[in-house]
Amino acid sequence: MIENPTRPIRSGGREARRAMRMAPRSSMLPALERNLPYCEPMDPDQIARIDNASMAILEDVGVVFRDEIALEDWRKAGADVRGERVHLDRGLVRELISTIPSSWTYRARNIERSLPFGGRHSIFVPMTGAPFLRDLDDVRRLPTLADLNMFHKLAHLSPALHSTAHVIVEPMDVKVSHRHLHITYSSMKHSDKTFMGMTTSGRNAEDVLAMCDILFGADVLEETPVVTGNCNGNSPLVWDETMLSAMRAFCKRKQPVLCSPFVLGGANTPASVAPAVAQLNAEALSGLAYTQVIRKGAPAVYGHYLSTVSMKSGAPMAGTPEISLMNYMIGQMARFYNVPWRSSNTLGGAKTFDAQAGYESAMTMNAVLHAGTNYIWHSAGWNEAGMHCSVAKFVVDAEMCAMGYRMAEGVRWDDFDEAMQAVRDVGPGGHYLGHAHTLANFERAFFMPKLFDNNSIEQWQADGSQEITARALEYARKILGEYEEPKLDEATDEALRDYIARREREIPAADAVNTEY
Amino acid sequence: MIENPTRPIRSGGREARRAMRMAPRSSMLPALERNLPYCEPMDPDQIARIDNASMAILEDVGVVFRDEIALEDWRKAGADVRGERVHLDRGLVRELISTIPSSWTYRARNIERSLPFGGRHSIFVPMTGAPFLRDLDDVRRLPTLADLNMFHKLAHLSPALHSTAHVIVEPMDVKVSHRHLHITYSSMKHSDKTFMGMTTSGRNAEDVLAMCDILFGADVLEETPVVTGNCNGNSPLVWDETMLSAMRAFCKRKQPVLCSPFVLGGANTPASVAPAVAQLNAEALSGLAYTQVIRKGAPAVYGHYLSTVSMKSGAPMAGTPEISLMNYMIGQMARFYNVPWRSSNTLGGAKTFDAQAGYESAMTMNAVLHAGTNYIWHSAGWNEAGMHCSVAKFVVDAEMCAMGYRMAEGVRWDDFDEAMQAVRDVGPGGHYLGHAHTLANFERAFFMPKLFDNNSIEQWQADGSQEITARALEYARKILGEYEEPKLDEATDEALRDYIARREREIPAADAVNTEY
Repeated sequence: MIENPTRPIRSGGREARRAMRMAPRSSMLPALERNLPYCEPMDPDQIARIDNASMAILEDVGVVFRDEIALEDWRKAGADVRGERVHLDRGLVRELISTIPSSWTYRARNIERSLPFGGRHSIFVPMTGAPFLRDLDDVRRLPTLADLNMFHKLAHLSPALHSTAHVIVEPMDVKVSHRHLHITYSSMKHSDKTFMGMTTSGRNAEDVLAMCDILFGADVLEETPVVTGNCNGNSPLVWDETMLSAMRAFCKRKQPVLCSPFVLGGANTPASVAPAVAQLNAEALSGLAYTQVIRKGAPAVYGHYLSTVSMKSGAPMAGTPEISLMNYMIGQMARFYNVPWRSSNTLGGAKTFDAQAGYESAMTMNAVLHAGTNYIWHSAGWNEAGMHCSVAKFVVDAEMCAMGYRMAEGVRWDDFDEAMQAVRDVGPGGHYLGHAHTLANFERAFFMPKLFDNNSIEQWQADGSQEITARALEYARKILGEYEEPKLDEATDEALRDYIARREREIPAADAVNTEY
Repeated sequence: MIENPTRPIRSGGREARRAMRMAPRSSMLPALERNLPYCEPMDPDQIARIDNASMAILEDVGVVFRDEIALEDWRKAGADVRGERVHLDRGLVRELISTIPSSWTYRARNIERSLPFGGRHSIFVPMTGAPFLRDLDDVRRLPTLADLNMFHKLAHLSPALHSTAHVIVEPMDVKVSHRHLHITYSSMKHSDKTFMGMTTSGRNAEDVLAMCDILFGADVLEETPVVTGNCNGNSPLVWDETMLSAMRAFCKRKQPVLCSPFVLGGANTPASVAPAVAQLNAEALSGLAYTQVIRKGAPAVYGHYLSTVSMKSGAPMAGTPEISLMNYMIGQMARFYNVPWRSSNTLGGAKTFDAQAGYESAMTMNAVLHAGTNYIWHSAGWNEAGMHCSVAKFVVDAEMCAMGYRMAEGVRWDDFDEAMQAVRDVGPGGHYLGHAHTLANFERAFFMPKLFDNNSIEQWQADGSQEITARALEYARKILGEYEEPKLDEATDEALRDYIARREREIPAADAVNTEY
């Protein structure tokens, strides 16, 4: 049922776009259905070379699972377990990953916002995990739960964002051990789009799933994915107990997990593009294979978090050419294994929303779009290597996603003959501004960004000489002023709040915090 | 000889890069030899559809040549000329463009900087035509000849820029009618890279070529291209006398001309991607065909200047998804006709070097690189829709070109097996920083941008909390301080100055100015 999803909504197409233009502020684009070809730098022999190298690593070097339950699971599944190290035969790996669905439909609270996913379908998901924000006044400070609520509203209000994610910024005013409850509730309450589930521990993941049971009904989770978890690996070749226990919680409930090796190219991988991909591929495969040990047929996503490291300073870098190349290659590997895959969008290391931030974000977005990423995470707000989420950048990134969406949709041909008649009508030296074809098509013909100023300098000066940061913050204030909460059913809302209250009484306050990427 | 160029230099490869790292500040990367696949959204039927539509326009609608000599040339060539309108049979067009060389070698003053061009070879050329600059203090003002000299020095100092172009900024302190002489001399004197030639009139173009005769020797121009002219068409479907007379001057001397329709999508083309490409293609073909009427076998480049127009304000836009799509399609058409092609890089409408400028530039650069552009013009400095050239943006764009260059080179496999041994050596949980493979490869493994700050915020604050504009201007000052002029031969220099002095006496002072894109 998951592999052949019934589609509750029509994806893409002219009608969907027209509906969106007519709809209120909080409308959403359907899941992207790409028609642009993939950028595929590897020929079949090179794909086989990566596959073979990765499988040899899994067989000969093995992967460390720092988790007693996982080791026991692997023993039962027939793997060669030596201490913490699990050696995986390529036949076993191929057999296990073959039961991962290649596509499914994400069910959103508002069923109209459900999303076909995998194959040519992609979704844009905001950044998460920022310990700081740059706020509506561009001040860098510690975030509160109110700030997180605001970002969930902005995600709700951005047509090209398909999800509110989860912990966009860390709500520092909530006790660490209770945070996952309030983060989940904020995603559920402030938007009716799909969202992510915290995986900071197995028990926290179970809380998220229990809240999903309340929101959707337990039977719905068995039918279709409603929430996505992320589990980071520790490169090279280690998975730890925290992530594995969260992975088990999600897989048991048939909810998708992103299996994401955390790659700092050159530091925890070889200092070279193709070998780094081979290692990352081995790591992702080991995680993907384990999802099927936990529950055969559970949805899972080939993931990674990927940066290259400056060999001078040790700093992680973004938007570099090697990250683009690795994304193209990883896309080919995921399609080779026939599983959906995740990458990271709009990354960058700038400290402010300056031109560096713009270059890095756009380089990264082009990489993931040409690579054909399905789960396009960190699609809005990311700056300073993820240390802060910027309100200004969030709304601009969201508009960039809408532009990238349009590019990846590819070329329309439906008005070609009609337009060629316009060329004959206008003739040499004429103009098209009043032509019937122009009047019929101008709204959809060319993307008109709201936040990019293309006026003359005189007009721009008359408008107050605002750089994009100021314009974006003004825009963010404006749309937040127009925000309308998509109300939760009252009984559901009460049940969710009761659950949180009960769990707050049960869970001791604690200070430790895990961050995922 | 042109179609099978002998290569005076080895292009690409590890040795070239190592040589560059070791070389002085003014070193240059070889012409880009791409290995990344092209982004090709059209199938063969769709290419045929564009070709057929364009040919039908040329046959049925025709193209206006506002120039008596061109009309007479076309009559002699067998075209159907009705008044100013030239109807071109597709058979004639195909026959004419078949003699355009598909590749050649640009000879530079320093023969070590000569450049294979066409096919998989591309070159990066700075922006031109700005009536203002943002200077070393980020002040927007009118440029002088000294400012133009400075930009030619910066182009000389930027490894990924293969050319100094010509009128990067308009030297407002030089009489309009004498400007082309001083612009050409500045390109020739301040760098030994290749450059462009002014096409502001036929006579001006002849002056440029006469100066090239002095610099290279008249026989060299017959042997190989040394200078590139640009001729803009007036879309829809018009070529004027100024551009055509300059085109004739270049073609007669076998020097390459970019045949560039000037497209404001939606204003002077249909408001739709595929039909706009069909019109642009017809226009480019008519210009390319005429180059071969002028001189069979003359090198010529399929060109265009391309923006989309806001249907709300009429402002030209850059970095939009439709421009990317059109670039991909135009690349396919140029390869279909087997001619090299030109596009524009780093375009944008931002008034300052803010995040908008970064996004737009990077979107445009990705478009032209994935499209496989050969002559990558406007690769540094462009801002404010070309109204100013920014020193800060110039040096950052130049670094972005080096990053794009690396991406388009594709994936290296030469150390794959060695690196996979490193994975075995390091094993789960280890790190690679001290491994022999890392030490042998770290310099070439990952691009380390100079102008992108990836340090922690604490380190960034300790360094003065500089945004990229301030860092870039500091860097520009630094490299200008290290600039060493690649001295012209004294007799040549004197001959050039004598030529300029004579022509200044001959040419009456005038105020009109043409700008090309």
